Amino acid sequence: MPKIELFDCISPLDYRYYGGNKKYVRELSEYFSEKAKVKYQLRVEEALVKTFAKKKICSRAIANEISNAVRRVKPEEVYAEEKRIKHDIRALVNCIRKRVGKKARPYVHLTITSYDVVDTADALRYKEGTEKVILPSLKLLEKTLIKIAKREAKTVQVGRTHGQFASPITFGFAMAEYVDRLGNRINAIEAAKNGLVGKSSGAVGAYNASSIFLANPVEFENALLKEIGLKAGGHSTQITEREPMLDLTHAIISAFGVLANLADDMRHLQRSEIAEVFEEFGPKQVGSSTMPHKRNPISFENVKSLWKEFMPRINTLYMDQVSEHQRDLSNSASGRFTAEIFVGLFIASEKMNETMSRLKVDRKKMNENFEKARGMIAAEPLYVLLAFHGHPNAHEHVRKLTLKAGDEGESLYDTAMADKSLGPFIAKFSKKQLRLIRDPETYTGRAAQKTLRVCARWKNI
Amino acid sequence: MPKIELFDCISPLDYRYYGGNKKYVRELSEYFSEKAKVKYQLRVEEALVKTFAKKKICSRAIANEISNAVRRVKPEEVYAEEKRIKHDIRALVNCIRKRVGKKARPYVHLTITSYDVVDTADALRYKEGTEKVILPSLKLLEKTLIKIAKREAKTVQVGRTHGQFASPITFGFAMAEYVDRLGNRINAIEAAKNGLVGKSSGAVGAYNASSIFLANPVEFENALLKEIGLKAGGHSTQITEREPMLDLTHAIISAFGVLANLADDMRHLQRSEIAEVFEEFGPKQVGSSTMPHKRNPISFENVKSLWKEFMPRINTLYMDQVSEHQRDLSNSASGRFTAEIFVGLFIASEKMNETMSRLKVDRKKMNENFEKARGMIAAEPLYVLLAFHGHPNAHEHVRKLTLKAGDEGESLYDTAMADKSLGPFIAKFSKKQLRLIRDPETYTGRAAQKTLRVCARWKNI
Amino acid sequence: MPKIELFDCISPLDYRYYGGNKKYVRELSEYFSEKAKVKYQLRVEEALVKTFAKKKICSRAIANEISNAVRRVKPEEVYAEEKRIKHDIRALVNCIRKRVGKKARPYVHLTITSYDVVDTADALRYKEGTEKVILPSLKLLEKTLIKIAKREAKTVQVGRTHGQFASPITFGFAMAEYVDRLGNRINAIEAAKNGLVGKSSGAVGAYNASSIFLANPVEFENALLKEIGLKAGGHSTQITEREPMLDLTHAIISAFGVLANLADDMRHLQRSEIAEVFEEFGPKQVGSSTMPHKRNPISFENVKSLWKEFMPRINTLYMDQVSEHQRDLSNSASGRFTAEIFVGLFIASEKMNETMSRLKVDRKKMNENFEKARGMIAAEPLYVLLAFHGHPNAHEHVRKLTLKAGDEGESLYDTAMADKSLGPFIAKFSKKQLRLIRDPETYTGRAAQKTLRVCARWKNI
Amino acid sequence: MPKIELFDCISPLDYRYYGGNKKYVRELSEYFSEKAKVKYQLRVEEALVKTFAKKKICSRAIANEISNAVRRVKPEEVYAEEKRIKHDIRALVNCIRKRVGKKARPYVHLTITSYDVVDTADALRYKEGTEKVILPSLKLLEKTLIKIAKREAKTVQVGRTHGQFASPITFGFAMAEYVDRLGNRINAIEAAKNGLVGKSSGAVGAYNASSIFLANPVEFENALLKEIGLKAGGHSTQITEREPMLDLTHAIISAFGVLANLADDMRHLQRSEIAEVFEEFGPKQVGSSTMPHKRNPISFENVKSLWKEFMPRINTLYMDQVSEHQRDLSNSASGRFTAEIFVGLFIASEKMNETMSRLKVDRKKMNENFEKARGMIAAEPLYVLLAFHGHPNAHEHVRKLTLKAGDEGESLYDTAMADKSLGPFIAKFSKKQLRLIRDPETYTGRAAQKTLRVCARWKNI
Repeated sequence: MPKIELFDCISPLDYRYYGGNKKYVRELSEYFSEKAKVKYQLRVEEALVKTFAKKKICSRAIANEISNAVRRVKPEEVYAEEKRIKHDIRALVNCIRKRVGKKARPYVHLTITSYDVVDTADALRYKEGTEKVILPSLKLLEKTLIKIAKREAKTVQVGRTHGQFASPITFGFAMAEYVDRLGNRINAIEAAKNGLVGKSSGAVGAYNASSIFLANPVEFENALLKEIGLKAGGHSTQITEREPMLDLTHAIISAFGVLANLADDMRHLQRSEIAEVFEEFGPKQVGSSTMPHKRNPISFENVKSLWKEFMPRINTLYMDQVSEHQRDLSNSASGRFTAEIFVGLFIASEKMNETMSRLKVDRKKMNENFEKARGMIAAEPLYVLLAFHGHPNAHEHVRKLTLKAGDEGESLYDTAMADKSLGPFIAKFSKKQLRLIRDPETYTGRAAQKTLRVCARWKNI
Repeated sequence: MPKIELFDCISPLDYRYYGGNKKYVRELSEYFSEKAKVKYQLRVEEALVKTFAKKKICSRAIANEISNAVRRVKPEEVYAEEKRIKHDIRALVNCIRKRVGKKARPYVHLTITSYDVVDTADALRYKEGTEKVILPSLKLLEKTLIKIAKREAKTVQVGRTHGQFASPITFGFAMAEYVDRLGNRINAIEAAKNGLVGKSSGAVGAYNASSIFLANPVEFENALLKEIGLKAGGHSTQITEREPMLDLTHAIISAFGVLANLADDMRHLQRSEIAEVFEEFGPKQVGSSTMPHKRNPISFENVKSLWKEFMPRINTLYMDQVSEHQRDLSNSASGRFTAEIFVGLFIASEKMNETMSRLKVDRKKMNENFEKARGMIAAEPLYVLLAFHGHPNAHEHVRKLTLKAGDEGESLYDTAMADKSLGPFIAKFSKKQLRLIRDPETYTGRAAQKTLRVCARWKNI
Repeated sequence: MPKIELFDCISPLDYRYYGGNKKYVRELSEYFSEKAKVKYQLRVEEALVKTFAKKKICSRAIANEISNAVRRVKPEEVYAEEKRIKHDIRALVNCIRKRVGKKARPYVHLTITSYDVVDTADALRYKEGTEKVILPSLKLLEKTLIKIAKREAKTVQVGRTHGQFASPITFGFAMAEYVDRLGNRINAIEAAKNGLVGKSSGAVGAYNASSIFLANPVEFENALLKEIGLKAGGHSTQITEREPMLDLTHAIISAFGVLANLADDMRHLQRSEIAEVFEEFGPKQVGSSTMPHKRNPISFENVKSLWKEFMPRINTLYMDQVSEHQRDLSNSASGRFTAEIFVGLFIASEKMNETMSRLKVDRKKMNENFEKARGMIAAEPLYVLLAFHGHPNAHEHVRKLTLKAGDEGESLYDTAMADKSLGPFIAKFSKKQLRLIRDPETYTGRAAQKTLRVCARWKNI
Repeated sequence: MPKIELFDCISPLDYRYYGGNKKYVRELSEYFSEKAKVKYQLRVEEALVKTFAKKKICSRAIANEISNAVRRVKPEEVYAEEKRIKHDIRALVNCIRKRVGKKARPYVHLTITSYDVVDTADALRYKEGTEKVILPSLKLLEKTLIKIAKREAKTVQVGRTHGQFASPITFGFAMAEYVDRLGNRINAIEAAKNGLVGKSSGAVGAYNASSIFLANPVEFENALLKEIGLKAGGHSTQITEREPMLDLTHAIISAFGVLANLADDMRHLQRSEIAEVFEEFGPKQVGSSTMPHKRNPISFENVKSLWKEFMPRINTLYMDQVSEHQRDLSNSASGRFTAEIFVGLFIASEKMNETMSRLKVDRKKMNENFEKARGMIAAEPLYVLLAFHGHPNAHEHVRKLTLKAGDEGESLYDTAMADKSLGPFIAKFSKKQLRLIRDPETYTGRAAQKTLRVCARWKNI
């Protein structure tokens, strides 16, 4: 097979994120490389003759002869033939035809058109690649997140909204957000991959050629696609309708967004001033070429950055919905790049899983940060309880109290206790209610329970 | 209510596509205007106290008192209060509170936070607006397309791929593509709107405040949301997870893409040289300020143009997936604009339906174009049949034959019949097969049947 | 003029960010509203007849008569006429024509086509709106940033890369980044607005109609455009080439990106754990409906959010570059929305200027954060100096030293001094060099000088 | 150097559009591959020591020793070292250091930080790659377009707006549009590439480290950058400001948009019903795997499709404008992909030039299409002349006349002549004016002259 020097490559996917990793190449090239594209196209041609044999249109012997030929065709051979005749699928067909005898030859590619092969093969490899590579990687990450969430279900952490200290949560609860959102996206990807469709309706979708030979070409299409585990779309032209592939890409990109959000949260929790979590840092790892003390969240930054690269590419698929009449070819080159989006998510997911698996959680620092917020956190339950127990203007009163406490450097609890006007209302507080104000670490609501419930929901994913 | 002069508006939605049309304003403002936003927020506050009453947390009398107050609050009043205190939901709450007695006041907004109101109200209005305005409009368009597809199921038209004459179809079949794709998008929108979620989990999502008063705040959340026809998401922070709203917007934008494709197809079929369909042109309508003879496809161009405006806006929602920790507010302003996307699709759908309802189909011209292609169309069945009947090199032979026929200005049928080398193979053709070559209008495969089957599938939408 | 209720509006620009602010409406509606569009179109029609008079094609009296008529036409009148005849510019022309006598009438709109008027008017209003509203707002912000940068030129702040403490800077230096980047974008906008072009080359751009009456229609086009302060593009079709407007929008969006970055930096510096800067918070302002203690960076979040809304819209303009043959109309509706992008940036710029003008800088907290970093900051100069003075492996040695210092809770300076292997090298350090390690607040390089130099560069903007 | 099998690659750039073409690999890999990235980084390290020598900071011998070492470093070696220490630039520095003696070692990478190298190297390779590969390709295309425009300057063609016959032009005039727009984009790229900037301001941009050794580090930065033909930006942090690279990418993408528009125009002119131009089709080329008669505009479709793939990627650069504080690393992975955009445009430009160089123009068919339009084309001059000669309602009258002529199948000229009410006005027409109505091929305005003028403007590009 022709080779290219790795560092002559243009695409960072090839030279950096995938091409240098033998395991990735081995696994991903089966679905997302050019080799895979050709391999799956051959598989569609093989399914065609198998279905012919099942339907008694050709003999089993002929189908076997063609099957055997199909399995010997190599991508480089197809490319060489394409160079000569300037048509990729005709080249593929020629490579099969020249390997079979006169009697078998007419059945090769009979009744179907190029895009019956191209679109069906693509649907199949994206479906199987999603099943075999993308979803397993995301599920591994999901399990890692569940593990952290359960482990940290009761680790009190100050909640943050607008980057400001807010009501308390637990770190497990913060992780449960991603357990649930990623779980939902896994389901969305699962559903969308099952919606992918193939076709054998011919050059304009009306079964023109197949109608010559087949009594029921629509039923034949179903049989052919069933042979390889796909189904037909509701209406195809020269190509399958674009929406199923777009839906899958949407699911992929929206899963990517969940990873980007997680990466951002971790990056910020790793800030020097916050320092609640850390990427594990190898003992030989260099943080900066000039600042030897640096411990940078480079994996989280990497995931965020990959998201910025791949997210906008879904625009191409939205644009590719528009294809003139029974199709123009202007989705062909752009369609080839879709595989990169899947690989992009895979790289990010692997990186994220690796990093989260070894995430250092600094519970001491988490507690220190909570301590800084303690005085303020009580504001919400205080206001809520005052209001409930009849204070006419609780929110405004507490708002002013927090300003006062801040100015005087006292805790809100002490400031509130010293405020005589509040006495009659506070007197109505139950002990447990009073404790919420004094010990705001008890004010975590249902954080721990919710965390466990969410983890239970997704444990069998 | 404060008013703005229509032509002082900045947004073309307001001054041109919606604001000048009283019917649109009446229908759409119920869901997609700022008035609607406030109205739905009030509805959430009302649902809260109703659920309190059901759960015996407050009396039915108090709930009624608050309900009555809620219904009297006006958006302009909320805006005035917001101007004073610089917080929109606190302003809303103040407007309710000042209308109720001392005993009821504590129950207003009790246990919930601003975004419990904002996100739940938005989910509800987008759900109901989609049900009441967006889907009905798209379904009307679907019915119009079905009507055309059925009517033209047997109208032979030359198929076009790459803008080149290809195998024949029927015009109904070309329309059936859109019946099916739009039908699928209607289903996708339907499913996505039902996936929208609300919340009452409080300021950081851990039910901190509600846990003070409620034994089971998670169950209470379900009850509250059920009251208004929503459900809770799997995990909320200060806000609901962004994915359900993103999924709905994806469904909306991908439906828009189907309309854009239909618009493009119609535009091109209306080209002077093709001229198979026409937008109806009013007798007083001016086509050009200087070229009085012009009949431009302005509605189709308009739909395509609206798609170009609104399609890229989904990027905002993909970016809004990323919100730091228990949320940052950077999805607030951008989230307000989401309503425009729904209205954009509505405008395009109404315009498309109006135009397609009155579409002029010129069957005579369709036939003339077919006649020009007749000689070439036979190439596919000829090659397929020669190959099937044993010709060793049918595709290449026919390819050269078409070049020859083109050079000599003869029909492919005549050229083929004159080619002696083909005689032995053609002799094997059945009568019906021979007719496909001679009379290519019979070579429409299953176009008509498929059209009717697609129409039947979607008739009850 | 027809009115719309503000809260019936769909667009947040109209009902929230602009329409409720009388000053904004007064200033912006002159350039970016529908009223402005019509007004500028009338101005082009007037410039046409003035140029006719100058070139002696019509009499001055006729030109004056038409000028007077033009000034009396109102947008609502044009809209009413458009409703009748379904063509916006023909409607405008009719409104002028009916106001002038028989002799003047032929000269109204003579030789030009609709888009000569539309595109020229748009170029002019975007040019003038940019000059009169957009640039002044950005320049005011630039001045505010310069003021802060100069004031804080020597306020030591810990630099942050990857969110981690890095080498020290000054807060003025951090602001100077935005002084320079915004300054450059102001220049870019300035240059791009001057590149906007108009046209009077007629329906397909070949001066077909104008050639009938004008000896040199190309020269006439230049004269007409000069009359209103524009120039002609290099080649127009029915429309002007899209690139000049795209270039301006790129400059606008890239300026928006600079504001978004500034907003993000400020948001993060306002985090509870960092707390170096604050948005001023009104004494009556409510931070949260349930958490009375919150001080949220809502203006910075707002600016970031507006950027997320408007940034993706430039994709529409990239798509609008593609217009078939001598134009298709599919850039018409989308082109109307371009004004929103300009207004979006204006709103963000005003908000940013207002917030930055009153920015609270907490120098005490800045110093506290610096103190926390002190021990580590010295790592860079230590490594650099050791390397320079001959240490064979300085970077690696210092990297390990920082780990050791961290583990033992000592300062890097003390750890280094206690490391005997370093003695021979440290002995070569000059006093000033040693001081950099001991007192890293002196290790701010050229931060202060660079700040002042940058401020000087932009002071006369 | 490590290799990858071409068909194991994920990126279509690598396996299909570039990697299989030895000439492309040879030329483009010098600037846009990973090999190039490392090579240019080494060049920056070399420029550093050369500038040290010039400034007498180190001896010329030391500079030479390092220069010699730099030239022997290979990318694969750097990657291997990076694998060990997990930092790319420190790895590069180690590879140089181990090749030089003890005295030279301290000067390697002295005073600078990783991104001084990365950003400067990138600015330089994008500048030189644009000069040496991108611009020459676009200029070749520009020359091809000029050649066609001049050759076809007088070939009458019916103008088309909205896809409808409009006033006449010449085919050269239609091409001149692209000569001018592409010429302008070449200028924009030229200007933007000259705006690229480098830096040596260190880890946070304040020249902290370089200030230790250099009296005037700002002046040193200028000297260093001048050494390699770059300049410094106005203000850098750890990285250069993003805007210069964004401006260049905007210029690249907007040039791509011009190519996409040209591709679309050609595609449509090649439609079976229009058939005025054709891609040259090799005698062995296969148009369709099943429709042997097809002649598809595959190169034009390919260019359009590549545009759809690469256009949205500029969103990544707009997002990358936002980098926290003195930088976060979230533009690192995404920044690596920018090279793909340049290569994407190059591939499209080469394809376009190759196709346009051999474009078949069918003047006969162009004339036939004009003949079909003839009757209608006269409408514009007729209306204009009637109006000018005093007809009170010329536009409306002619509009009705065209409807009448259409209904009766007569030419507009004959219908007008037969209309008695027009007699008095037509009598005032000059001979030449009358001829415009009768022989609308004379009604091409300044099409030919404008074409030649545009071509002259760009001939020396």
